Amino acid sequence: MCMGRFLLMIPGPSLTDPETMLEMAKPTLSHVSAEFDSIHREALDMLKKVFGTSGDVVVIPGSGTAAIELAVRTSVRPGERVVVLKAGYFADYLADAAKRVGAEVTVVEAPVGRGFTEDDVERVLSQRGFSAVLLQHVETSVAVANPVDRVARKAKEFGAKVVVDGIASIGGMEMNMDSWGVDVCLTGSQKALAVPPGLAIVAYRGGFTPLVDNETLYFNITKLLKEMESTRNYYITPAVNLIYALNSSLKKILAEGLQQRYRRHEALAKAVQRGLEALGLRLVAEEGFRANTVTAAYVPEGVEWAKLYSEMHSRGVEIAGGLGFLRGRIFRIGHMGEVTANDVVATLAALERVLAKLGYRVEFGASVRAAQQVLDVYGV
Amino acid sequence: MCMGRFLLMIPGPSLTDPETMLEMAKPTLSHVSAEFDSIHREALDMLKKVFGTSGDVVVIPGSGTAAIELAVRTSVRPGERVVVLKAGYFADYLADAAKRVGAEVTVVEAPVGRGFTEDDVERVLSQRGFSAVLLQHVETSVAVANPVDRVARKAKEFGAKVVVDGIASIGGMEMNMDSWGVDVCLTGSQKALAVPPGLAIVAYRGGFTPLVDNETLYFNITKLLKEMESTRNYYITPAVNLIYALNSSLKKILAEGLQQRYRRHEALAKAVQRGLEALGLRLVAEEGFRANTVTAAYVPEGVEWAKLYSEMHSRGVEIAGGLGFLRGRIFRIGHMGEVTANDVVATLAALERVLAKLGYRVEFGASVRAAQQVLDVYGV
Repeated sequence: MCMGRFLLMIPGPSLTDPETMLEMAKPTLSHVSAEFDSIHREALDMLKKVFGTSGDVVVIPGSGTAAIELAVRTSVRPGERVVVLKAGYFADYLADAAKRVGAEVTVVEAPVGRGFTEDDVERVLSQRGFSAVLLQHVETSVAVANPVDRVARKAKEFGAKVVVDGIASIGGMEMNMDSWGVDVCLTGSQKALAVPPGLAIVAYRGGFTPLVDNETLYFNITKLLKEMESTRNYYITPAVNLIYALNSSLKKILAEGLQQRYRRHEALAKAVQRGLEALGLRLVAEEGFRANTVTAAYVPEGVEWAKLYSEMHSRGVEIAGGLGFLRGRIFRIGHMGEVTANDVVATLAALERVLAKLGYRVEFGASVRAAQQVLDVYGV
Repeated sequence: MCMGRFLLMIPGPSLTDPETMLEMAKPTLSHVSAEFDSIHREALDMLKKVFGTSGDVVVIPGSGTAAIELAVRTSVRPGERVVVLKAGYFADYLADAAKRVGAEVTVVEAPVGRGFTEDDVERVLSQRGFSAVLLQHVETSVAVANPVDRVARKAKEFGAKVVVDGIASIGGMEMNMDSWGVDVCLTGSQKALAVPPGLAIVAYRGGFTPLVDNETLYFNITKLLKEMESTRNYYITPAVNLIYALNSSLKKILAEGLQQRYRRHEALAKAVQRGLEALGLRLVAEEGFRANTVTAAYVPEGVEWAKLYSEMHSRGVEIAGGLGFLRGRIFRIGHMGEVTANDVVATLAALERVLAKLGYRVEFGASVRAAQQVLDVYGV
């Protein structure tokens, strides 16, 4: 497998620090040893800072989908009336999880490219009593970000629980569960936390007690919380080497400084957005709903997605396509975690060459120039 | 974290090849790229050989417990009468999983140290109609192995499905699902497959159709089987870097040769068993039910488990204790995966020094001598 210095510019798994990767190659410790427990606990404590919670954080081997299931099972009761705010493809995962625990699920859909404001939430919650609001922080499929702070505060006015899928945001965009009133927030390791895939992470707001109504063998929150207290309370075997990587990456994240990191993500996002627009491309997400971790744009008329992908690929840049009904119609660039301004500039430049080759009219340097202006303002 | 050249002699996670570890440090490929799909498919094909099946194999991010849940959800229907053959602690995981899908579960318990013969199975299945038999291949908690080949053949005479937890056996002890009639067999990455923890693996016998009755968001076998066909059929993000390690380790396993590998495990097991007995220690598993991947012995009178552990630990050897009611009463040595004769000899020697220090009467070299005689016979 030849991978070389490929630029993995997809919205997760994301580019990682080589040091993080080497952490994984360290010898596997016993999962119940004092040494590993200390590494594990340190990672959990750092995660609490990233989530902005004084509550519990649970990390288990799993994909983001496992985190969604654990989060929903521990926050939604059978028969409960809940609403899923759907901005794209991944909202269906939340809805599916809620239906499967027996909740009465209403899905409210936003037009493509839009998220939900507090006014939308007010409208939805005024119409009908919902005891929980479920939504994505960043809906990766369309690169739409919801203003979770305002959504959560509004939902709280109605006494509704707030469950947030932060898979494509945590570590790259601000989250303050305790002060915003986000009761449950979940993520995966492979996005803005800049760790390879394989860890499902669920955080609870301080004071929020996870529900035990829907436990399964694997998603047994009672046992998992005990194991999080100490890995000596063995229930399932943690992904030891991925926890090393998580611990290492979280140290880098906190050393960079959360606010500084969020600002860097904002800079890269705006650089990519301005860059794509300078090429005359249309962004999928509307102004005001654009994520700082991923950008989606429509594949221009006359260009084929498959060719766009393979030409970028052959230039050492991996980008992502659309999901569901947007397959073939949009492309997505991830710029989260350890992605740098250098990666972003190189990606835009490659895109210019590729689009030109595919017959799309490009002024070489146009997107890079636009991006440079943003990066300069941010001092990145 | 100081780990050095520690001997991880616990029954999983097990010692791994440093090359396998370095595989994990390779750059993360896009999970939907052709490059990764090929690595992934190759790993699945190799797993089929290890399981001895022409059926499907599913690998997802998860611990062994996730594999148990997926296996049981796809093999046991609500209301079905099933029997769990309990030889120790981990049988409760199988029983719990089956109960949670609504099966009517009977647990038949063997005395500590014993497993189940075909006669036991005949007796159990004659008494009452059970549509499925669930059991561990190796019950790690007591180092007991069940003769799964004979158990499965007997169960088949009664038309019962056979679900086997092979977490502590697959890759170290023979499994031939197709010819033995094992319908579903599960394992984890971190045992005899010699990969770090984080992958849950479930294999189906050729011709066996996984049930879709108990799907959850994560354990959605319909979607997972499609993703196994090609990772381009994205449903959940695979643990890309762990799959690299799995692929690499499976290549080593097949290069060693399955029969050769099983024989090596047998040699190491007998060496440890003879070694411990030469020190006057009592093994937990009875002759005829001893696993080739792990050995358990009673902590001798006058010796404290906590001290035994810490003295071994300070000599660079990590061993495991008892689980449940055997906590503090037994200790366990794992000898699976990439563990070598050198590791086994060093472990026995360290144990001699530790036991002597703790006041237990030891003839230095006695356990090593006994082990040597076994290793010599096997030519290891």
